[in-house]
Amino acid sequence: MRTPLTGPVLPSANSAAVHRPASVARITGGFWARRRRTNAEVSIREGPERLEEAGNLANLRAAADAGTTRAFSGDFQFQDSDVYKWLEAACWQLADTPESGLADEVARIVRLVAAAQMEDGYLQTYYQLGDGEPWTELGWGHELYCAGHLMQAAVAHHRATGSRELLDVAGRFADHIETVFGPGKQVDGVCGHPEVETALIELYRTTDDKRYLELARYFLERRGHGVLASGADRGHDRDPGPEYWRDHTPIREAQEVTGHAVRQLYLLAGAADLATETGDVRLRQALERLWTDAVSTKTYLTGGMGSWHDWESFGDAYELPSDRAYTETCAAIASVHFSWRMALLTGEARYSDLIERTLYNGFLGGVGLDGRTWLYVNPLQRHAHPHERPGDQTSQRTPWFRCACCPPNAMRLLVGLPHYFASADDSGLHLHQYATGEYAGDGLAVRVTTEYPWHGTVTVTVDDAPAGERTLSLRLPAWCAHFRLAVNGEPGQEQPKRGWLRITRTFQPGDTVRLELALPVRLTHPHPYVDAVRGCVAVERGPLVYCLEEADNAGGLDGVVLDSSTAPTVRERPDLLGGVTTIVASGRRLAPDETGWWPYLPDTANARLADGSVELTAVPYYAWANRGDGAMRVWIPERR
Amino acid sequence: MRTPLTGPVLPSANSAAVHRPASVARITGGFWARRRRTNAEVSIREGPERLEEAGNLANLRAAADAGTTRAFSGDFQFQDSDVYKWLEAACWQLADTPESGLADEVARIVRLVAAAQMEDGYLQTYYQLGDGEPWTELGWGHELYCAGHLMQAAVAHHRATGSRELLDVAGRFADHIETVFGPGKQVDGVCGHPEVETALIELYRTTDDKRYLELARYFLERRGHGVLASGADRGHDRDPGPEYWRDHTPIREAQEVTGHAVRQLYLLAGAADLATETGDVRLRQALERLWTDAVSTKTYLTGGMGSWHDWESFGDAYELPSDRAYTETCAAIASVHFSWRMALLTGEARYSDLIERTLYNGFLGGVGLDGRTWLYVNPLQRHAHPHERPGDQTSQRTPWFRCACCPPNAMRLLVGLPHYFASADDSGLHLHQYATGEYAGDGLAVRVTTEYPWHGTVTVTVDDAPAGERTLSLRLPAWCAHFRLAVNGEPGQEQPKRGWLRITRTFQPGDTVRLELALPVRLTHPHPYVDAVRGCVAVERGPLVYCLEEADNAGGLDGVVLDSSTAPTVRERPDLLGGVTTIVASGRRLAPDETGWWPYLPDTANARLADGSVELTAVPYYAWANRGDGAMRVWIPERR
Repeated sequence: MRTPLTGPVLPSANSAAVHRPASVARITGGFWARRRRTNAEVSIREGPERLEEAGNLANLRAAADAGTTRAFSGDFQFQDSDVYKWLEAACWQLADTPESGLADEVARIVRLVAAAQMEDGYLQTYYQLGDGEPWTELGWGHELYCAGHLMQAAVAHHRATGSRELLDVAGRFADHIETVFGPGKQVDGVCGHPEVETALIELYRTTDDKRYLELARYFLERRGHGVLASGADRGHDRDPGPEYWRDHTPIREAQEVTGHAVRQLYLLAGAADLATETGDVRLRQALERLWTDAVSTKTYLTGGMGSWHDWESFGDAYELPSDRAYTETCAAIASVHFSWRMALLTGEARYSDLIERTLYNGFLGGVGLDGRTWLYVNPLQRHAHPHERPGDQTSQRTPWFRCACCPPNAMRLLVGLPHYFASADDSGLHLHQYATGEYAGDGLAVRVTTEYPWHGTVTVTVDDAPAGERTLSLRLPAWCAHFRLAVNGEPGQEQPKRGWLRITRTFQPGDTVRLELALPVRLTHPHPYVDAVRGCVAVERGPLVYCLEEADNAGGLDGVVLDSSTAPTVRERPDLLGGVTTIVASGRRLAPDETGWWPYLPDTANARLADGSVELTAVPYYAWANRGDGAMRVWIPERR
Repeated sequence: MRTPLTGPVLPSANSAAVHRPASVARITGGFWARRRRTNAEVSIREGPERLEEAGNLANLRAAADAGTTRAFSGDFQFQDSDVYKWLEAACWQLADTPESGLADEVARIVRLVAAAQMEDGYLQTYYQLGDGEPWTELGWGHELYCAGHLMQAAVAHHRATGSRELLDVAGRFADHIETVFGPGKQVDGVCGHPEVETALIELYRTTDDKRYLELARYFLERRGHGVLASGADRGHDRDPGPEYWRDHTPIREAQEVTGHAVRQLYLLAGAADLATETGDVRLRQALERLWTDAVSTKTYLTGGMGSWHDWESFGDAYELPSDRAYTETCAAIASVHFSWRMALLTGEARYSDLIERTLYNGFLGGVGLDGRTWLYVNPLQRHAHPHERPGDQTSQRTPWFRCACCPPNAMRLLVGLPHYFASADDSGLHLHQYATGEYAGDGLAVRVTTEYPWHGTVTVTVDDAPAGERTLSLRLPAWCAHFRLAVNGEPGQEQPKRGWLRITRTFQPGDTVRLELALPVRLTHPHPYVDAVRGCVAVERGPLVYCLEEADNAGGLDGVVLDSSTAPTVRERPDLLGGVTTIVASGRRLAPDETGWWPYLPDTANARLADGSVELTAVPYYAWANRGDGAMRVWIPERR
């Protein structure tokens, strides 16, 4: 068994990927185990209730009932995809914890999906119950998007249970799509929302049916020629233009990421799968270029992507406002999907650097500590008394959304998380992320124990090793300036190469590798091109971005300035927010100016204001907004 | 004749206003004369063509034709108001330059309006030609809003020509409204868009019919009780909520400005008229509080108001992003309307300080140098290569808008401008703004010559003076730190009191008062609560805010930093942008960082970047966007 049964991304044996997924990857303790337990016991377990309340399951029941007169429930064409994402999450959970009691629910809902499928393989309850015509509203219809999530759920179901029941449903739908779409066929076009591309390639990897790979290739190469430019479907009188759909240039010619962030990133994930399976070097180079554009000019400190509430889009280069950050939870998930495929394809560590940052911050902030409330948008600042913008996505934790894409997406990422933590190549095993657990690849099997991210010590114990030399590769995080390495208690002399610490030797069971990552508090400055947070610092420690919340800082955040000449201190607070390490910094609070009516004046404005010393307490960003609606800020005005 | 014939705001003789409008106020040369000439000869003259092209006049013709089958032209209920605003502008122009050749056009369009009016006095072509019911869609219907603009046009027509033709039309409509609206009448409610309040009070001032004052009072006091909260009119499925309509609290209880900026400011102008006519001290105090809230926490350096594209609204306190500034041209106009009424009511100079700033910057930026192109939104920054946001208001100069509220609004303000430049009280004459021209009040008649705002010398020559002591009051602009005063060549010892330099003596014809305002370049800092422009400076000189435009700064604005330790220099450029004084500052350009992929790093980010010296050329903000679509910024990152 080279690869784990439970991974969502399993490149073919003859793919161009430099890495392959680990054959074992299990998280058994520590930070992520706690969050994944809540995910299993609360989020996934309660998912069917949410899907029942929102009408998603009723849509499937109605579609399965030939005599139904029931209208479609929900506001969006893609309601079915919430069910598929929950199914995918539940299947991975079933593989991880077969005793979880989810088997019956999964079986029930798989049967429901199968029953709802039409004779010809088509399945989308919005069109089955409504008056629209299938395949006529490619911009907003989301039929291929839903199909893609169905395929991913089916792949998960098959890998987790061995059953072909859902895989056959997905295959029939894929076969139907293959008869409809293509040059000279009924429809020559693409879906407004990418997703089917990566799903088709995973279906190909699971079934070995090359038609699915070719269909994915068709969708990926057809896009970028303005096929979606009109976007004038029923009920959508506003045409967002070809950039929104990422349909204005072919991916391989694109110079920058643009448009709807989740669409852009899902598309890139699919293109990465294609480059992986085909070895297309020019496509890989385009993806490297686009990844660098996204990360170096359009990504927040938290790893969040998408600067505009308008059209949920990427913004201009370096346009990264804290308060108006959209940074949808699904975009963080999509970013992890894309980066992990690039990590496997290239073997380069920087992709996992971004994944780490995104997981601990931009993604995890979207998941309430209770497992029952969610954020759709993940801004880096909330004003003290914000006026409501009618129609805006809220930045308050919410049990479920009218457009509920994020919660089940977060569930499937959390349960699939170990898959993204380790990989193998012909040299040995790579650990990309540090979590207590078991990992194996290329014959090398290890146990990891660590209290990361609160403490920097990672102990790797070899459980099994083949004869001869192997390499254990440990990612040295890009944020880490100082580390110590010990192998069986002896200092290791290895130095990082392109982000990897490579320990090569003939390993024996019981060998230990101990990596100590120094975790000083870091005061981080933005690139000077970022207008929105000039003159500010952010507090970071290890992979965690911190923020100030009103709940910890009496008097609120108005006028607060951090004194960066005084070193902050660290305080462990097991009582707070599920157990966190807080950071306490010295600062000042500038008093409001009550004397004048004009807020722009000569000399330094700071000098006009009386101020007083204040102690600033920062908490990990991921834990924000779990204590009401107070002010929050990641970037803090700096006084040197 | 105590007051000029041509002013739009003429408080009653027994009002509570501390000041009254000047009896003569004419601009005859200099900066504003040139812009007003373009306004007369291009903007106003070509207005009827624009109104014909956009269908506004066709709507009136159709409404006048009992047998019409023609549908309403245009996308908005308030199309008629564009005609009324143009009529108002043309009437003031007629009064200013009777030889302008506008009389026939004015007469023709007045006849058209009169013919379109219904038997009962109702007049709104949207409902006359469409299938909606009058007075059933108060949120979005804009019927009272249009009525208000009709009344203002009628007042202008009457004051400019002496004719009652349009005044009678407006009076019939007002009488009809008075029968429909009120407690226990057909409708007990208010219009979604304030405007009729100030118009009714001006109609009262013109006709002396107290019913109009009472009707205005009813609309002003009825608002704030949630009467518009649902907002669920036909074609508007999104309810913007009561804050948008400024309908969540009564004005006299409000603690802050909120919601749609133009609606908020027109409402406050109407309330200021009411406080002026009734002497209601509590209402005046509420208006002073709201003015201070708006100006000290929600106003841009340019005087622009409205931080949100969403719902064209005021934002949160100190939420003033440069690139996303909405700062609608109409909001700047509305701000002038409100502040001028407060200036007359209270006699305080700060209102005219804001008017000056707004006129020279936030307002004038909306008017193309050619008089033919306009800006709807007036941001303080444009990115180098902005992605289009579909559905967004453009920041490119445009000949006319689908929603064309701004162009005719700008026309009427420009032609009425002298009215806002001088006032009188029982002590004498007050000059609020400095422009070459003739001004008189309280028997004191003066001529002003000045090359303001390019040069700081203002020479006031007395043409006529009554017997006995009088006071000539000159506003010392809030931005001015140094000045010299001379009376008949002798240094004056007067010191400013609350913004006024008061020269009291028995004036003789031929007396001269010479005020020299020092005009150094000022580097201005923002209030430290303004997150968006922390660490930046703005360049100002006199009343003018400056900006960097790509057109003057080869290599663009990316990475540009201003060195504030070197004094900028001034260059007169008669060849540039109609003749401007430019400001040249020393700066650096930070080279883009091509080495890394992560834009957030320890230490100062600036230090990571190679840089080179650069000369920065700033032009007046009002002249921006007249040379294509390059980058622009008002706030410039500072290096001390």
